Amino acid sequence: VVASEIRVLSAGAAVPGPPVGTAELARCFGMDDLWQQWVDTFIGTRTRHLAVDLRTGRRRDTLADLAERAAADALAAAGRSAQDVDVVVMGTATPDELMPATVNVVADRLRIDGVPTFQLQSGCAGAVQAIDVAAALLHTGRYRTALVLGGDVIAKHYDVHADLRAVPPEELVNYVLFGDGAGACVLSTEEQAGAPVLRAVLTRLVGLDRAPGQELRWYGSADRPDELRPAREDYKAIEESVPRLAAEIVEELLDDLGWDRSGIDYLLPPQLSATMTATIVRGLDLPGAKEISCVDRIGNNGNALLFFQLAELLPVLTPATRALAVAVESSKWIKGGIALES
Amino acid sequence: VVASEIRVLSAGAAVPGPPVGTAELARCFGMDDLWQQWVDTFIGTRTRHLAVDLRTGRRRDTLADLAERAAADALAAAGRSAQDVDVVVMGTATPDELMPATVNVVADRLRIDGVPTFQLQSGCAGAVQAIDVAAALLHTGRYRTALVLGGDVIAKHYDVHADLRAVPPEELVNYVLFGDGAGACVLSTEEQAGAPVLRAVLTRLVGLDRAPGQELRWYGSADRPDELRPAREDYKAIEESVPRLAAEIVEELLDDLGWDRSGIDYLLPPQLSATMTATIVRGLDLPGAKEISCVDRIGNNGNALLFFQLAELLPVLTPATRALAVAVESSKWIKGGIALES
Repeated sequence: VVASEIRVLSAGAAVPGPPVGTAELARCFGMDDLWQQWVDTFIGTRTRHLAVDLRTGRRRDTLADLAERAAADALAAAGRSAQDVDVVVMGTATPDELMPATVNVVADRLRIDGVPTFQLQSGCAGAVQAIDVAAALLHTGRYRTALVLGGDVIAKHYDVHADLRAVPPEELVNYVLFGDGAGACVLSTEEQAGAPVLRAVLTRLVGLDRAPGQELRWYGSADRPDELRPAREDYKAIEESVPRLAAEIVEELLDDLGWDRSGIDYLLPPQLSATMTATIVRGLDLPGAKEISCVDRIGNNGNALLFFQLAELLPVLTPATRALAVAVESSKWIKGGIALES
Repeated sequence: VVASEIRVLSAGAAVPGPPVGTAELARCFGMDDLWQQWVDTFIGTRTRHLAVDLRTGRRRDTLADLAERAAADALAAAGRSAQDVDVVVMGTATPDELMPATVNVVADRLRIDGVPTFQLQSGCAGAVQAIDVAAALLHTGRYRTALVLGGDVIAKHYDVHADLRAVPPEELVNYVLFGDGAGACVLSTEEQAGAPVLRAVLTRLVGLDRAPGQELRWYGSADRPDELRPAREDYKAIEESVPRLAAEIVEELLDDLGWDRSGIDYLLPPQLSATMTATIVRGLDLPGAKEISCVDRIGNNGNALLFFQLAELLPVLTPATRALAVAVESSKWIKGGIALES
């Protein structure tokens, strides 16, 4: 439970290029109609945005490009300038470079300087983790306004010349699950009409002795043989665990806050894939909650997702409304959630 | 300034394998006596520890291996078990994989579970940044004990079959500057006899419009041409800026705390290289401060350095002693510092 009152003033989001349909992906990677049907049925993600040009394989947008746009939108929507930002926290699994950290490149472009900046190496619970760190920093009383960023550019892993027919399913699924994008929100200890209060943030490692559900490798000279398998997904483990963990997160948040299940107006569920999200929502038993999801349109863009959901939520929030957001990191299994009240 | 009292209970550190002298590096990479003299004169780092076997080029220790050892030592020295740890924060520029985050692999091995874990993507100010985040989290009152980790394994970038005679100086310097290692410390809101109080933590981006002094690239399929130049060092920019920034950090910490320059008993200066550290210390004008440095023996192991310095400092601290630690991230220019008082 967050003790002092921290408000979410705004959210912003950015995607690269036009939406890429599954048919277009299939054409690029030499997959057939059957594969498209398999994707539609078991993944349900119809379109995603990619930072790589599928024809040439070259990167089109960097994570910094996308995060800069999302941050500028969020700051404008909050009526804040770069000079108002007292601290910046960013979450990503896929920084542009190892050094300098992408958060500092983005800060530079926004003309933010002289303040603490932090970049988390994080997965699908990364937005929650970044909000948690930002909230703790605001809680110290040293800062008033935090810019929180999250995003991923996963398509840079794609080898567009690969023949995916030879790729095992646990790697193949990455090409359709993920999308690229970045998001941002502005948190503040200042009051602002209509801005919901962050009532609770939950983030907790729960992976003891459990194999990673997802791996994204690092390349170094000493590891060249690994290059051929940059990413792996244990979709079965994810399918089995994520709905259960999501239910636990909702229980914990409601218990901590003494909130009633029927009093939740909005649910921002995990966004691994459209099919998985539907399964999770069915299991959560929040009958009065309106779902805010976007993964079917933008793919799973990791650390950005929650900001896309917040960007849909904030404009429609009316007074005395409660929202829960739930996120699960399936790499080493992290529970994440936030509770908002307007 | 840190408001509530947070104490540094202990520190631990770990390096891979035996020390590697400059002569051994020179032999491996085909460099001559003149190069060795150049290294001795301008860098001053005599030995470092490498996580890669120079003969085979294979990685010997992962960052998780080193961080696990350092953390176990720090916990033992603090008289704390894994079950006492309420939150874990790690800083590194060179995670083992992008996902899962190395902090979670280490937590798993230490049997830490069910608590928040965070991994910062950070450079030479990373230990300060990790301590800052951990202190803010402790400050919320939600946690009592934080395990803070930092480390880097940079040698995985080495191509041991490279002929370094063809490599430009801004890349070549990386082979002698850096070493591999990891460190840890235990922070707590609980009182403990002899444990110094964390009086201030300063971390601040100050790189507006300035080119990175250091770059460590990321490899993705869309970026293969970059692979040949994984790291770059603008040593001139670093030489010019780091001593000045270090002096500013000391000024700021002393001003914030109202501490007198002559009352500083220990100085833990930046550790880019032995020569650079000597230059910085000469410029800091802290006549009564005993210097604690280690870079000449272990190389610049980035996010680990401050923990090595703390591991030397803590056992010799007597009551009523003040220490300042100063760190500068020269990638996108971050000021970092902490102030301790026993």
